[in-house]
Amino acid sequence: MFEANVYVNRRRALLAQMAARMSEGARGIAVFLGNVDAAMNYRGNDYKFRQDSSFLYFWGVDEPGFAAVLDLDSADECLYGNDVDMDDIIWMGPQPSVASKGAAIGCAKTAPRADFDKAVADALAKGRPVHFLPAARYYSQMTLSQLTGISPEAVRKVAPMTPIASDGGRHASEELVKAVIALRLIKEQCEIEEIDKACIIGYEMHTEARRGCKPGVLEQEIVGRMEGVTLSKGWGVSFTTILSQNGETLHNHSHHQIITPGRLLVVDAGAESNTHYASDFTRTYPCSGKFTTKQREIYDLVESANEYAFSLTKPGVTYWDVHYATARHLLEGLKALDLVRGDVEEMLPLGISGLFMPHGLGHNMGMDVHDMEDLGENYVGYAEDQKRHPLLGLGNLRMARRLEPGHVVTDEPGIYFIPALIEQWKREGTDKGFVNYEKLAGYYDFGGIRLEDDVLVTPDGARRLGPNRLPITSRDVEEAMTKE
Amino acid sequence: MFEANVYVNRRRALLAQMAARMSEGARGIAVFLGNVDAAMNYRGNDYKFRQDSSFLYFWGVDEPGFAAVLDLDSADECLYGNDVDMDDIIWMGPQPSVASKGAAIGCAKTAPRADFDKAVADALAKGRPVHFLPAARYYSQMTLSQLTGISPEAVRKVAPMTPIASDGGRHASEELVKAVIALRLIKEQCEIEEIDKACIIGYEMHTEARRGCKPGVLEQEIVGRMEGVTLSKGWGVSFTTILSQNGETLHNHSHHQIITPGRLLVVDAGAESNTHYASDFTRTYPCSGKFTTKQREIYDLVESANEYAFSLTKPGVTYWDVHYATARHLLEGLKALDLVRGDVEEMLPLGISGLFMPHGLGHNMGMDVHDMEDLGENYVGYAEDQKRHPLLGLGNLRMARRLEPGHVVTDEPGIYFIPALIEQWKREGTDKGFVNYEKLAGYYDFGGIRLEDDVLVTPDGARRLGPNRLPITSRDVEEAMTKE
Repeated sequence: MFEANVYVNRRRALLAQMAARMSEGARGIAVFLGNVDAAMNYRGNDYKFRQDSSFLYFWGVDEPGFAAVLDLDSADECLYGNDVDMDDIIWMGPQPSVASKGAAIGCAKTAPRADFDKAVADALAKGRPVHFLPAARYYSQMTLSQLTGISPEAVRKVAPMTPIASDGGRHASEELVKAVIALRLIKEQCEIEEIDKACIIGYEMHTEARRGCKPGVLEQEIVGRMEGVTLSKGWGVSFTTILSQNGETLHNHSHHQIITPGRLLVVDAGAESNTHYASDFTRTYPCSGKFTTKQREIYDLVESANEYAFSLTKPGVTYWDVHYATARHLLEGLKALDLVRGDVEEMLPLGISGLFMPHGLGHNMGMDVHDMEDLGENYVGYAEDQKRHPLLGLGNLRMARRLEPGHVVTDEPGIYFIPALIEQWKREGTDKGFVNYEKLAGYYDFGGIRLEDDVLVTPDGARRLGPNRLPITSRDVEEAMTKE
Repeated sequence: MFEANVYVNRRRALLAQMAARMSEGARGIAVFLGNVDAAMNYRGNDYKFRQDSSFLYFWGVDEPGFAAVLDLDSADECLYGNDVDMDDIIWMGPQPSVASKGAAIGCAKTAPRADFDKAVADALAKGRPVHFLPAARYYSQMTLSQLTGISPEAVRKVAPMTPIASDGGRHASEELVKAVIALRLIKEQCEIEEIDKACIIGYEMHTEARRGCKPGVLEQEIVGRMEGVTLSKGWGVSFTTILSQNGETLHNHSHHQIITPGRLLVVDAGAESNTHYASDFTRTYPCSGKFTTKQREIYDLVESANEYAFSLTKPGVTYWDVHYATARHLLEGLKALDLVRGDVEEMLPLGISGLFMPHGLGHNMGMDVHDMEDLGENYVGYAEDQKRHPLLGLGNLRMARRLEPGHVVTDEPGIYFIPALIEQWKREGTDKGFVNYEKLAGYYDFGGIRLEDDVLVTPDGARRLGPNRLPITSRDVEEAMTKE
C-alpha cells in the first residue's frame, strides 16, 4: 500500500479526466465495486483473496467487501465497508476500523457497505449517470446487475454514457474505461519500484525452474517449487504457470509429464508482489542441458528477435511497428532455414508469420499481467486511430499503442510448430505457397520456443525490468545448466 | 479419476435414493452444473481451476464448462460440453472429445453445452420438477437463475420439491441435497485411498512448517514453502493455510509476522490431492523450540482432549456426544488450572467451554475440507432428529451425526484466549460466575492451541488417516524441533 497522497492524487486525476471527457451537463457518479472472496469449492473455502485492480488503484483497500463512490459533479467521495463484530473477531481477529482505512487513503467519508447500495439507487432515482467499469467477476456482474436493474450481459458491455444513448446509459461507462486506462497505463515511480520487486521474485522462480529442469523430474514438481517461491515472498503467481514440453501449446497448464532428454521445456511464469504488481518472464530450456543443432537454430532466431524488438522499443514508436518489424525479422530467419520461401516483403502483410507465431509481441503489464484486460483489450492496447489487423498472429497483438515513458510492456517473440495448425494451412492453402511443408514435416515433434522479458519505456529508450536478466543466449543458458 | 464403473454406480445409487425420496408421481430431472474458470483479476487470468465437488463425484470430468442431466423418471443421462476448435488447440492443445470423456465415466450420451440449456428449458416447459443443488459460486448462482428464471437468492435456498410448494418448486432441491449427502458421507474404499494420499502430502507440508518454525523467520516464508510442497505433489491447498502466532484468531490468514521466541505458532493446513480429496491437520509449536510451563499445561490439556475424543470415536456413537464429552474434559482440565471454578457438570450445559473453544470438535472431510458445506451445514452434519445447540462453542459443531463406518471426520480440540471475547463475557456476565477472570488476565498474550487429526470411522472403531501421525505430544514435538 502506498501513502495516502498517492490515492488522493489518482482520484483527483480521475475527476479531471472525466471532466475533460464530459464537458457538458451533469456527469453523475463513478462507482467502484471491490471484490469479495471467490469460492474454491464452497463459500467460506475461498481462493486467496485478490482485490479488483482498479479498486486497488484508486481506493487502496486490499480486503473483501468494500465499495466506493466518487461524485463527478461535487467531487464528494465515500468508502463503504463494514466494521467487524465479535464473530469476526473470533474467526479473523481484531481489525482496524473502516474510518481508519479511509484515512489511510485520504478519504474522509466512510459508511457501512449497505449505504453503497442506497447511494447507487439514489443516483439512479435522480436520473444521474452511474458510471461503472465492466464487471470482471461473476460476483460483480451479478451485483451490479441487481443494483442497477441492468442485465448481467449489459453490465459487461462498454458504451458511451453521453450523449445518453437510446438504452438510457444502461451499460458500463466508456468514459470511465478510457479515463482509468489513461491513468493506469503510465506507471508512477512507486509502481515501477513494485514491478521491479515482482521481477526479483520472478527471477527467483525462473532460477528454480532452470535448476529443476533435469531428465526424470515431473513437471508438476518444478511448478510447485516455483510457486512456493512466490508464495513465500509475494502474493503468489501473477498468472497460472505455463511449464511444458509441449511448448507449441501457448497456454499449456497440464504438468503431468516427465522431463525427457531431447525435448524443450517452455517456462512462462511470473510473480505478483504483495502489493499486487506483476512480473512475467518466459525462458525455454533444452531438457538435456544442451540444444541440438536444430533447436539452436530456432532458439537463436527467437533470441535475436527478442533483442531486436527491445532495440526498437522507445518513446514515439508504436508497439505495432515493433511487432511488425519483429515478424519480418522472424520470417527472414525462417527463410534462411528454408522453412519459408519467397519474398519476405510479400509474405509479411499476408500474415505468414502467424503460422509460426500466432500471438502478439507483447502486452501491457502492471497490476494485471495483461494490464486492465477486463476493461477491454482494444481500449487498453489500441489508440482510437489504430485498427486491429484481421489475421492470425499480426492481429493477436494486445498492445499496439505509440510508446510513452512509463509504459511497461512485455517483449515475447516465439516460434512454434503446431501440427494441427500447419495441417489446416496446408489443406486450405492459407500460406499462398510461401511455406515449405516438406521441411516443416521434420518439425512436428519440435514443440515451441518463447523468450520474454518485461520492459519499461524510459524517456531515452527502454530498460529491462528486474535486477538481472535471466540467462537468455543459448550459450549462457547451456552454461548455467551445466553448472547447476 | 476413478474407473467408469465408480461413476456409473454412483449415478445408479442416486437414482435409487431419489426414487425412495419421491415415491409418487413424476420425479423430473436432476441437473448438475460444472464450474467454469474463476477470474483472479480478469476473465482469462483465472485461479487454478477447481471443479464442483458433486459434479466431480457423479460425472468425473475435471474441466471447466461442463454440465449434465440425469432423468429421474427414465434414467436417461447426458453429459454436455463443447469439443475444441482450432483457437483452443493453439492456446490449450489438442483435447480428447467430449464423447470420449463421456465414455470414461460410462455415460453413452453426450451433447454440446448449449443443449443443456435447452434440456432445462424443455423440462420446465413440460412442468417437470428440475432438481439442482444450491449454487456455491456466483457463476452457478447467476447461470441457474438465468436458466430457470428463479431469483439469484432462491437458487441458493433449499426446500422440498414434492409436494410442490406454493412457490412452484422454484428453489434448490432438498431431496437432491439429502440424496447426495447420503452417498458422499460414506466414503468408498477408492476415496479413502485418495484421502490417505492427501494426508501424505499434508504430513510433508506440516513437516516443512515445523522445520521452518525458527525465531527470525517470516511467517509468509514458511507458508510459501508449505504450499510449494502441495503444489508439487497435489492440486494445492485444501483451504487457505492458517499459520499464525495469533492462534487465538481461529482463521488467521495474515502472515506478516516474524517468528518470535516465547510465542506459539498455530499451523492449520492441508493438501488437496490431484484427484481433489482433502487433508486437514493442525499442530501448535513453541517458537523457542521448548514450551514454557504455562504453555505446556494448556498444550497437554488440548493434546489429551484430542486423544480422548479419538478414543470415543466409533460406530454407533454420535459425534455430538464426543464433542460434548470433550468439552467436559477441557473444563475439567481448566478447573485443575483454576481458570474455571465450580461444578463442571453445572457449567457444561451452560456452554462455559465456548469461551475457550468457540468452535466444534470437528467436521466431515472428503472432496471438500468441510465436506459438502455448500449443501448446507445442518443437512450435512445433523440427522433429522438432531437440533443444533444454541450456545457459542457447543453450537458450533459442524458434524453431530451418529458415526458410521466410512465417515471421515476431523478431531480438533483447541483452547484459545481471546481478549475481546473474555472482556465481553466479563462485561455481560455470560460465565455465570464460573470463570476466574483474575487468573485469566495473565493469559491475554497467550494466543491459542489447536491440535487436529483426520479420522476414519471403521467397523471396529476409528483409524487416524495418513501414513504416520505428526508428532503431537509435547515431548515428541520438542524432540523433533531440537533435532531439526
